[in-house]
Amino acid sequence: MTVTVAVPDPAMQERIRTSVPEDVDVIVWRPGDKPHGDLIDLLVMPYAVVYETLKGTGGQVRHIQSQSLGYDGAAASVPAGVTFSNAVGVHEAPTAEMAMTLILASQRGWPEVGRNQDSQKWDRPTWPGLIGARVLLIGVGGIGREFEKRIAGFDVELTRVARTARDDIHGIDELPVLLPAADIVVLAIPLNDETHGLVNAAFLDRLPRGALVVNVSRGPIVETDALVEHLRTGAVRAALDVVDPEPLPVGHPLWSLPGSLLSPHLGGAVQSMNTRVDPLVLEQIDLLLRGERPKNIVIG
Amino acid sequence: MTVTVAVPDPAMQERIRTSVPEDVDVIVWRPGDKPHGDLIDLLVMPYAVVYETLKGTGGQVRHIQSQSLGYDGAAASVPAGVTFSNAVGVHEAPTAEMAMTLILASQRGWPEVGRNQDSQKWDRPTWPGLIGARVLLIGVGGIGREFEKRIAGFDVELTRVARTARDDIHGIDELPVLLPAADIVVLAIPLNDETHGLVNAAFLDRLPRGALVVNVSRGPIVETDALVEHLRTGAVRAALDVVDPEPLPVGHPLWSLPGSLLSPHLGGAVQSMNTRVDPLVLEQIDLLLRGERPKNIVIG
Repeated sequence: MTVTVAVPDPAMQERIRTSVPEDVDVIVWRPGDKPHGDLIDLLVMPYAVVYETLKGTGGQVRHIQSQSLGYDGAAASVPAGVTFSNAVGVHEAPTAEMAMTLILASQRGWPEVGRNQDSQKWDRPTWPGLIGARVLLIGVGGIGREFEKRIAGFDVELTRVARTARDDIHGIDELPVLLPAADIVVLAIPLNDETHGLVNAAFLDRLPRGALVVNVSRGPIVETDALVEHLRTGAVRAALDVVDPEPLPVGHPLWSLPGSLLSPHLGGAVQSMNTRVDPLVLEQIDLLLRGERPKNIVIG
Repeated sequence: MTVTVAVPDPAMQERIRTSVPEDVDVIVWRPGDKPHGDLIDLLVMPYAVVYETLKGTGGQVRHIQSQSLGYDGAAASVPAGVTFSNAVGVHEAPTAEMAMTLILASQRGWPEVGRNQDSQKWDRPTWPGLIGARVLLIGVGGIGREFEKRIAGFDVELTRVARTARDDIHGIDELPVLLPAADIVVLAIPLNDETHGLVNAAFLDRLPRGALVVNVSRGPIVETDALVEHLRTGAVRAALDVVDPEPLPVGHPLWSLPGSLLSPHLGGAVQSMNTRVDPLVLEQIDLLLRGERPKNIVIG
């Protein structure tokens, strides 16, 4: 059985082509390009493009492999009869790494320390530090587990929250009791109807003064207006890799409010990303060659 | 036996006084203050002052407890007949935490990401990340051990170096072979005649292009001129909590060279520092009350 695989760029084409049998046709083709002659068995989406581009792929593509973990909003754009997999195993570790980066930077004085470097000012106030902090992790899926692994050595008090309580994991209904005892809250949950706006004014009001809200999941889990208001009064601090809206427009208060540390949705994007994407694509090709269903199908 | 303890500020006086027997006299007294009537059995030095202030304490003080871990340069200022302890157990963990902060920030794009926040620019290049990096840790003492604990969850390849080889620890004489295989070098060693200028041009020349040099120990372990030259050409990057000289003067190239991330010697200074200093002071008082020698004596 011959398999046609579309990848978004010549570099990936070169890497994949050298690792598959000769009868696998690896082409460079992106949603929106003029139709390819043959049906594409596996379309590897470009990284970080909007899902709307998928709408025109009906009849041209059999299965879509996203390079992202989150797939909120994708279902509306995946054509009928096409299946869609998210990129399990690619972004969890670097996203957890970004959560740790944001937490450590915030607790050790950034962005102020960075601003002092740029103004060449040797200023040494005492910053909070991470040791001994009470960290509330919301979400124990892939990112949550990678985060736990990374924070394990930092001498913190970690409390875990999931949708439903189990073992030593608290249920999300316990948040009203848990939030007042959290110095740092980490959001590691997918965006869906249940989590949209989870971090609203009531959530933020329950945190101790100066607590740090860390979001590496999806912007709309946090109600931006409520967060802005709580930053303005110094009620909380924030360290955000994702915001709502993205890209954050010039002049938005989140860029410059005190206690706000931002990175522009860099979670999974590190130079080693290919070393995790390529094996996933090769595994899907192998499944197709064996006439099996692709793995990690979340739509279709 | 009555004991006189001098502490540097009323806040520490209050905390210590409530935890010791009533016949322990806890006074606020700092080197340079007018002589106290009685001999001071234990002088707790103010944090981060120069050792020269100790020169006048001869005949007034029996034992000095520093609040710092490093004591390079102290011996010249401790009067004859006075003993001196460094602050073992206070700064190792927060200093290792700072090393992790500097590494993660550098690997994930700071200071550029911070500058983009300040200029409100949503810019998403791909940064190196830490996962998979080859990390060379020089020093396996207190800071080194706390660093190992913290980096353990980050999926790196860690190689350890000490003065002399043992078990799976390499000797410092193996550096010429180890440096070419290091993406990140972490300095966690005391400053002494052996380590002064260890990171010179020859050391830096052996590193792969773009390697990150992390210093949380003492500035003079790195030859500043050699580092500046290697930053200028992009040969290496640097993440430095300590520099030579300190404070770094305005206009010094380390403030602004590309690939240079700086913090102003914040290693051990976090808000939880008292929770580690106080027990150490109380332990020393307890030893004195029992007529025993203070612990961690490194001079005298």
